[in-house]
Amino acid sequence: MMLVQRRILPWRRIRSARSFSSTPARALIRSIEDLPDRIKPSYVQRPPATLLSLQWPSPPRNILITKKKRTPGITESLVEYTTHLSTTYPSINIILPPESAAEVHEQLSFPVYTYKEPRPDSTPQHLSDKVDLVCTLGGDGTILRASSLFSHSATVPPVLSFAMGTIGFLGEWKFKEYKRAFREVYMSGASDAYAKLEVPEHLHSTTDPRTPASTSDPLDQPLSYNDIRGKAMGSNRTARILLRNRLRVGVFGPSGQRINSTHSDGDTYALNEVIVHRGSSPHLKIVDVYVGGRFLTEGVADGMIISSPTGSTAYSLSSGGSIVHPLVPSLLLTPICPRSLSFRPLVLPAETPITLRLGEKNRGREVEVSIDGKRISGGMGVGMEVRVVGEEVRTADGDWVGGVPSIVRGVNGLEEREEDHWVGGLNALLKFNYPFGDQDADGAGR
Amino acid sequence: MMLVQRRILPWRRIRSARSFSSTPARALIRSIEDLPDRIKPSYVQRPPATLLSLQWPSPPRNILITKKKRTPGITESLVEYTTHLSTTYPSINIILPPESAAEVHEQLSFPVYTYKEPRPDSTPQHLSDKVDLVCTLGGDGTILRASSLFSHSATVPPVLSFAMGTIGFLGEWKFKEYKRAFREVYMSGASDAYAKLEVPEHLHSTTDPRTPASTSDPLDQPLSYNDIRGKAMGSNRTARILLRNRLRVGVFGPSGQRINSTHSDGDTYALNEVIVHRGSSPHLKIVDVYVGGRFLTEGVADGMIISSPTGSTAYSLSSGGSIVHPLVPSLLLTPICPRSLSFRPLVLPAETPITLRLGEKNRGREVEVSIDGKRISGGMGVGMEVRVVGEEVRTADGDWVGGVPSIVRGVNGLEEREEDHWVGGLNALLKFNYPFGDQDADGAGR
Amino acid sequence: MMLVQRRILPWRRIRSARSFSSTPARALIRSIEDLPDRIKPSYVQRPPATLLSLQWPSPPRNILITKKKRTPGITESLVEYTTHLSTTYPSINIILPPESAAEVHEQLSFPVYTYKEPRPDSTPQHLSDKVDLVCTLGGDGTILRASSLFSHSATVPPVLSFAMGTIGFLGEWKFKEYKRAFREVYMSGASDAYAKLEVPEHLHSTTDPRTPASTSDPLDQPLSYNDIRGKAMGSNRTARILLRNRLRVGVFGPSGQRINSTHSDGDTYALNEVIVHRGSSPHLKIVDVYVGGRFLTEGVADGMIISSPTGSTAYSLSSGGSIVHPLVPSLLLTPICPRSLSFRPLVLPAETPITLRLGEKNRGREVEVSIDGKRISGGMGVGMEVRVVGEEVRTADGDWVGGVPSIVRGVNGLEEREEDHWVGGLNALLKFNYPFGDQDADGAGR
Amino acid sequence: MMLVQRRILPWRRIRSARSFSSTPARALIRSIEDLPDRIKPSYVQRPPATLLSLQWPSPPRNILITKKKRTPGITESLVEYTTHLSTTYPSINIILPPESAAEVHEQLSFPVYTYKEPRPDSTPQHLSDKVDLVCTLGGDGTILRASSLFSHSATVPPVLSFAMGTIGFLGEWKFKEYKRAFREVYMSGASDAYAKLEVPEHLHSTTDPRTPASTSDPLDQPLSYNDIRGKAMGSNRTARILLRNRLRVGVFGPSGQRINSTHSDGDTYALNEVIVHRGSSPHLKIVDVYVGGRFLTEGVADGMIISSPTGSTAYSLSSGGSIVHPLVPSLLLTPICPRSLSFRPLVLPAETPITLRLGEKNRGREVEVSIDGKRISGGMGVGMEVRVVGEEVRTADGDWVGGVPSIVRGVNGLEEREEDHWVGGLNALLKFNYPFGDQDADGAGR
Ligand SMILES: NC(=O)C1=CN([C@@H]2O[C@H](COP(=O)(O)OP(=O)(O)OC[C@H]3O[C@@H](n4cnc5c(N)ncnc54)[C@H](O)[C@@H]3O)[C@@H](O)[C@H]2O)C=CC1
Ligand SMILES: NC(=O)C1=CN([C@@H]2O[C@H](COP(=O)(O)OP(=O)(O)OC[C@H]3O[C@@H](n4cnc5c(N)ncnc54)[C@H](O)[C@@H]3O)[C@@H](O)[C@H]2O)C=CC1
Ligand SMILES: NC(=O)C1=CN([C@@H]2O[C@H](COP(=O)(O)OP(=O)(O)OC[C@H]3O[C@@H](n4cnc5c(N)ncnc54)[C@H](O)[C@@H]3O)[C@@H](O)[C@H]2O)C=CC1
Ligand SMILES: NC(=O)C1=CN([C@@H]2O[C@H](COP(=O)(O)OP(=O)(O)OC[C@H]3O[C@@H](n4cnc5c(N)ncnc54)[C@H](O)[C@@H]3O)[C@@H](O)[C@H]2O)C=CC1
Repeated sequence: MMLVQRRILPWRRIRSARSFSSTPARALIRSIEDLPDRIKPSYVQRPPATLLSLQWPSPPRNILITKKKRTPGITESLVEYTTHLSTTYPSINIILPPESAAEVHEQLSFPVYTYKEPRPDSTPQHLSDKVDLVCTLGGDGTILRASSLFSHSATVPPVLSFAMGTIGFLGEWKFKEYKRAFREVYMSGASDAYAKLEVPEHLHSTTDPRTPASTSDPLDQPLSYNDIRGKAMGSNRTARILLRNRLRVGVFGPSGQRINSTHSDGDTYALNEVIVHRGSSPHLKIVDVYVGGRFLTEGVADGMIISSPTGSTAYSLSSGGSIVHPLVPSLLLTPICPRSLSFRPLVLPAETPITLRLGEKNRGREVEVSIDGKRISGGMGVGMEVRVVGEEVRTADGDWVGGVPSIVRGVNGLEEREEDHWVGGLNALLKFNYPFGDQDADGAGR
Repeated sequence: MMLVQRRILPWRRIRSARSFSSTPARALIRSIEDLPDRIKPSYVQRPPATLLSLQWPSPPRNILITKKKRTPGITESLVEYTTHLSTTYPSINIILPPESAAEVHEQLSFPVYTYKEPRPDSTPQHLSDKVDLVCTLGGDGTILRASSLFSHSATVPPVLSFAMGTIGFLGEWKFKEYKRAFREVYMSGASDAYAKLEVPEHLHSTTDPRTPASTSDPLDQPLSYNDIRGKAMGSNRTARILLRNRLRVGVFGPSGQRINSTHSDGDTYALNEVIVHRGSSPHLKIVDVYVGGRFLTEGVADGMIISSPTGSTAYSLSSGGSIVHPLVPSLLLTPICPRSLSFRPLVLPAETPITLRLGEKNRGREVEVSIDGKRISGGMGVGMEVRVVGEEVRTADGDWVGGVPSIVRGVNGLEEREEDHWVGGLNALLKFNYPFGDQDADGAGR
Repeated sequence: MMLVQRRILPWRRIRSARSFSSTPARALIRSIEDLPDRIKPSYVQRPPATLLSLQWPSPPRNILITKKKRTPGITESLVEYTTHLSTTYPSINIILPPESAAEVHEQLSFPVYTYKEPRPDSTPQHLSDKVDLVCTLGGDGTILRASSLFSHSATVPPVLSFAMGTIGFLGEWKFKEYKRAFREVYMSGASDAYAKLEVPEHLHSTTDPRTPASTSDPLDQPLSYNDIRGKAMGSNRTARILLRNRLRVGVFGPSGQRINSTHSDGDTYALNEVIVHRGSSPHLKIVDVYVGGRFLTEGVADGMIISSPTGSTAYSLSSGGSIVHPLVPSLLLTPICPRSLSFRPLVLPAETPITLRLGEKNRGREVEVSIDGKRISGGMGVGMEVRVVGEEVRTADGDWVGGVPSIVRGVNGLEEREEDHWVGGLNALLKFNYPFGDQDADGAGR
Repeated sequence: MMLVQRRILPWRRIRSARSFSSTPARALIRSIEDLPDRIKPSYVQRPPATLLSLQWPSPPRNILITKKKRTPGITESLVEYTTHLSTTYPSINIILPPESAAEVHEQLSFPVYTYKEPRPDSTPQHLSDKVDLVCTLGGDGTILRASSLFSHSATVPPVLSFAMGTIGFLGEWKFKEYKRAFREVYMSGASDAYAKLEVPEHLHSTTDPRTPASTSDPLDQPLSYNDIRGKAMGSNRTARILLRNRLRVGVFGPSGQRINSTHSDGDTYALNEVIVHRGSSPHLKIVDVYVGGRFLTEGVADGMIISSPTGSTAYSLSSGGSIVHPLVPSLLLTPICPRSLSFRPLVLPAETPITLRLGEKNRGREVEVSIDGKRISGGMGVGMEVRVVGEEVRTADGDWVGGVPSIVRGVNGLEEREEDHWVGGLNALLKFNYPFGDQDADGAGR
């Protein structure tokens, strides 16, 4: 077990991972390494061409919660949320990023787990082995940042995202729905096996200080065996998953060696896109584009975007790309301010490798490379390449792996399918095809 | 004087143009030919690069009023408006299009004037010699139709447009403002000479049935000498005019002869645009484009638009053209669905002649030609040309002529310049750069 | 057997389908009904995410050949091509459309088969039961027309297309390559079973007048058992197939009944797109768009396109749509001249149903509906709907069905994969990202 | 007089500006201050709406010549060109930028003049008081750089630009035409007064080493009185000027004070555009846009361009702006990658002031500001503004001032007007509406 000095890193010296009852809980920040191993859910698609159903083999235990920075009120929400989880789902362990952990752990009556900040261009260790479920409090940027914690992992835990303030395009749930949302996810696909859930002893005591004496909301009741028997949603009542395909991105030097990779196999996964851009250089850049191993074109432009369908509503949209539904298995090639009248954006099969190469013609040294809005240190020089291919999300056996499993509103099997998130977002958020006319003046519309 | 049988055309046999007091006024539809000649205002620009000021040499008398078709309540508004004008400005003569005249004259206690429906591709006779001011009740389409009544005239009377229901992009005033709006226009630039206005005798009698017994609104008071003395706006308090440049359009046959022209000099003026289009032919058309007499390009497309800056927010906008402020002296060449990746819309100097020629390569016979949304009968065959140039709106002496003088909100010199119509319209009507995000949900915006 | 009088329809009274040796062959036009039933090839994809391999269970026999209209020299090419096939592959039967058959059969020394012109909105009978392979001589339009002959069939025979004059985007082969191209297709995937091919007796006689006395080109040699043994390409040397997904289109009346359908199940398949368009009406149309059964938006526009990825380089491109690779399983929704600043084209999953509905707001009666550039008679009135979904091209068992199996250049397994057709077409035909600058002047490029 | 040490700056200690005959000419670099004052030409427009005619009151004397950097062969061309000028037009003085002067003066047999490198964000002193004519050897970038030497001057000398290698969009002449081009410019509008030109004495001597013994090209003959008499082009045969309007740009701090201005009145003139851009910040910037003093919109984007019509074919084009003819008096507002579906580019009247303001919402500190591709040091922080208005190019008296007077091909009055530069450039350089199809394959075109 890793023990760390408070002075150095924000965790407390602790005697034993399970000894939190003997010391005041609030002081503790524990290491993620102490947690039990990750529980991987499975995903079922039935009928074909629909969203997936989330199915836990046993209840999730290790919950990573991330939040937006510099947002008023967000810390209070984080405390409220973690307290609810800890009170209602006593077997759950809360994981927070180091900064959040340091910020809030003294306000909490239960231990939190954290990890070490990774080096630049790296991801934190152990996350992908320990985290069962990710919850984000924030906007699209917070989801991107959470997803980038797993940008070197082939499988990302399901992500439950709460919008704080305004709804984003990737996000889904309003924060005020958090109790219901979490309950649905927690119980998703629960079978009888679920009933084997071990309920910690102290929950049977009525004097547990963490349990409010009386509460009218069943979602606030600690979840015990009995609760579950009645409420298990069953394998037909499951949280719905939109599996967002990612890009696999590698950066290579002029002689073909990998660059900027801190781990063995080397690729980085992107949720939105990878971008090469002139950055602060005032001059056009010249990027050779290869598709499926063949030379396609020489792009003379501010930059070039290779985007997932998810990213089609992000930077690619601003650069004139089409809007592509996240379930279309594809890659988008969208130029940024191309010096050409005829560089129409392209939509290519997800399995087609695309390479961007910085040819000899470029003046100056470097272009900037960024993944999901985060710059890769070092950028890209003449002769270097960015190689991209769509992530595979289905094994030969038909199992769903990879992607970012995003939990969307509505529960399969339980109720009428709600308003489609994506179509709704087009209208409500992107103001897609917003009608002309003086609606407000006379209430009459066009 | 022209006398017409009621059976044939909607005007009444009348004995004398001035004899209306001896027969019940309501029965009369008179000929526009009986009216005194047109009073032409002048336009002053001071300081440079601002809107123009409208200045009447003497009060306008002959008012043409047009309305939208098939719109509930619009006939009532027309009756209300003409009654107000007739009551308050007794020296004013109301001109209505034949159909409107027939529809409403029995509801009116004063005579209305009208003209004969022109033949196809023609404009009504006498309008441009008689009409001092045009008022439209409707939307952009109504303004376009009113303007097309003068599409063979070099000078169009000022146009005061009232939106019925929803505000349009060309229109300006809400109908509920009609009293103030008309008063401002009527008095615009009124000098002392204005006081010579002859007030009809009956107005001094208090028993005139048309005058409401008592009214609190000064804008309802018949306008007599005394009224004017106090209220004359003076040459510094004038209605503001946006002079909308038109296009001069000619259609020519393969051997250079004019086509579709019913009048001597032949050109037709367009307010928005002239369009050639494949219409119901399923095939691409091939249009040769000449700019300034030189071959520019062969357009292979659904069609081609040559637009005024005013028309830049109409069809050209839908086809991907830029938005051009109506005061930029220019012509827009915008292709409709061009079979090319590189046919970017062009903005050319207003004085550059543009020719669209239907080359030999075209399959089938005809493309459709339309001006301001109205098809020219016959269309255009192989070898035919549409020739366009921007209308000149300033003489060598600096006088302002031509264009469609559109009366916009706000009075020069009187008050703080109000919200710029055009910028306001971009935001309110075209939803220009409408912000992303979930404004409604949380009231928080982006 | 169907016998038809020459005067009425262009086929000859013939005694027996097999009796052609006793009468001069050139006079005969036979009915397609006389032909043996279709031989359906299978398609194999190995490795994944590549083009398919064509595999005939036995050699194709019934070849439909279509040609472009009104093109100089094309009839000569048709005669040359059919003569080559008949001479070199004696067991082959040539099928021509009625008009072509009538035009050329007197120049041929062998019988041709044909079918009856279908009624409007119908497809010819028997074609899908009899045709093993389609060859087109022409351009993209010719391929579209050939494909529309099968627009009511779930399976289309492989299509081998020869460009006459200029290469099109859908087409593939140059006419001068026809011998090699046909041989590759004919032998594609040939296994040992192929060797059982029965060689007509007369071919062993050296006096057959159809065989040139001596020819140096092995591709001109009649294909006998021996030839095949040496030249069989084997199951690893196969013609490459790009399976172009089609759209399934249905038109429905206000009360949900099918319109314009002459056959039972009713849907029509489109290769490029289905379009609704204002046609010759000068006014904007208002089209309600539903995606996946939910209301997406009210489009106010010239029209609306639902396109396959194949059609993404056709009308959709002209209307501003992205270019989508034919192997991306998707549907494109592209508006034509939308009266909106914010109607960005959409790319949706192929399996998502899209409905276009003509709402009550539309002025005038009708919009035009066209499929692959051919107008559907009757158009579409208020309350009517066009319903579209992507064709499924793979059965649950993983077999490839449906689509238009387009034979592309290069032979799997035989040689290095040639230049990718699609990427090549972007550059060579669409002038994709055509570089700026004065290339010609100094040969130096930018 | 300014004397500079060779070691420090590339000018030689010289005794007197006119003493060059006593020392070997080649060693000399003189100060621009020694030159006679600038001769300002006038510009005449006749007929209206055409290009201007250049008219010198007396022959130009002080010629500034700039060249592209790092281009093979360019130094040789510079030597060739200056030698020709010096030999043929003995009264001419050659001005070179300091770096060029140092590089080539030892290869020249005549003195060159130069100036001191300015401080950042400044322009060189004296240039606008001394330079009669600017010649550029290079591409568009070279013209932009030359124009920026006068970016604080209200009047720019005429610019004669020679393309080296490839033709640019702003440039005009091929280098091989330099003799004729210069002669035309030199003599443009020459009247009888021109004949007073003093011919240096040594030119009458036949032994002047700079004169080739015999030359067949009359353009190589030193220009003496006699030459001129015969060849004076007269006031009707003049070089044609395209007066390219510039933008007047000011940068202001949060409290309204001018920023980055090293001179009194403060504004900087731009030929192409002024840009604000996120630069190397990975986040969207939020720019408030004011038009004519009124708030137009909040742009959320990579950046924002305010462009002249000249700049419409530069960065604005890449960002989706329309192509605007340089003679349309207008400003373009074009967003760079706006996070909006509805931010269509705008074309505004040249006299409308536009302000870009960096609001409080921006994360991070700075956006980059660049003028004609050159970054302004310091960038722009929260609360700062860029204010832009079109330069006025005509005085109240109708005189033409300001702008960048660009000498275009063809001579007014002398010959048939040649191919319009701008239309030609669209086709030849921008590949405007480049036709689809397989032109090369069969030479047949579409
Ligand atoms: N994405 C883009 O299109 C970018 C464009 N630029 C443009 O580059 C200009 C600066 O030029 P350089 O220093 O040479 O930079 P550069 O090396 O980035 O080249 C700019 C390119 O734009 C062309 N160009 C410049 N002005 C033009 C005009 N008015 N019309 C047509 N083409 C034009 C040049 O020929 C050159 O090909 C800036 O004023 C800006 O307009 C600068 C950065 C990015
Ligand atoms: N404004 C436009 O772009 C229009 C396009 N069309 C297209 O024309 C098609 C019908 O073709 P035709 O009867 O020959 O009409 P047509 O004579 O109007 O020619 C259509 C052009 O589109 C090309 N084309 C057709 N399908 C293509 C594809 N999938 N990819 C790239 N290019 C393609 C053809 O080579 C031809 O140049 C329709 O399916 C529609 O897509 C039809 C009308 C207008
Ligand atoms: N796809 C399109 O965008 C089409 C546009 N039109 C436009 O419609 C005009 C004729 O109008 P209607 O007879 O009422 O036809 P319509 O019933 O098709 O309506 C045209 C629409 O354009 C608006 N409009 C007209 N002129 C405008 C302007 N200058 N700026 C902004 N909006 C404007 C009107 O308010 C109306 O919403 C034509 O001049 C043409 O510009 C016509 C056909 C198709
Ligand atoms: N000009 C542009 O449009 C730019 C866009 N970006 C995008 O921002 C992303 C990074 O996000 P932040 O760090 O928050 O940067 P940020 O502060 O620049 O905000 C990016 C905006 O994009 C939205 N967004 C992110 N992903 C989205 C998606 N998949 N669909 C729809 N909207 C989405 C966010 O809600 C936010 O409004 C990058 O992945 C890139 O796509 C980054 C720079 C410029």
